[in-house]
Amino acid sequence: MTELEKSMESMITVFHHYAKEGGNKTTLSKKELKKLMEAELPNFLKTQKNPDTVERIIKDLDQNKDDELDFEEFVPFVAGLTIACEKHYALHHDKKGKK
Amino acid sequence: MTELEKSMESMITVFHHYAKEGGNKTTLSKKELKKLMEAELPNFLKTQKNPDTVERIIKDLDQNKDDELDFEEFVPFVAGLTIACEKHYALHHDKKGKK
Repeated sequence: MTELEKSMESMITVFHHYAKEGGNKTTLSKKELKKLMEAELPNFLKTQKNPDTVERIIKDLDQNKDDELDFEEFVPFVAGLTIACEKHYALHHDKKGKK
Repeated sequence: MTELEKSMESMITVFHHYAKEGGNKTTLSKKELKKLMEAELPNFLKTQKNPDTVERIIKDLDQNKDDELDFEEFVPFVAGLTIACEKHYALHHDKKGKK
């Protein structure tokens, strides 16, 4: 498997690892998303000063308003975070004067 | 770094690995996207019978119509592919009767 394929697979397995816990086994509840973010995105959570971060994120992403995130609702969150990280990376990369 | 953070990092490094080649060093040209897909998404390319696949993909994703993909235009492609893979995974997972 290539690096890009592996990263796609990781997104799927990480999502399902937390989604399968309580209630609906194929979606993330607020509690499950919180657990996922605490364990898998600790550096992102540290930058968030608002204690309602998880609640706000789920509200923003929950398109069908069922208070749960399915995989299609979760991916745009990871995509958005990755785009934010890349902006930081590009900035840093430019500063170092690399091509 | 957690698994999810690593997969976000991989998307960034894979993109830049190919983007940095010719012309604009921060975007993928059609040639660079083709190279990326041949090397990093060989299984996806195999399923595509149409020889214009790369051309069609770049047209679909290139929001600012500059015939290049920047990272923000590239991420929705990986996101869409991952969602398609997850549907396949969910189907397969159900069949195996796992929780």
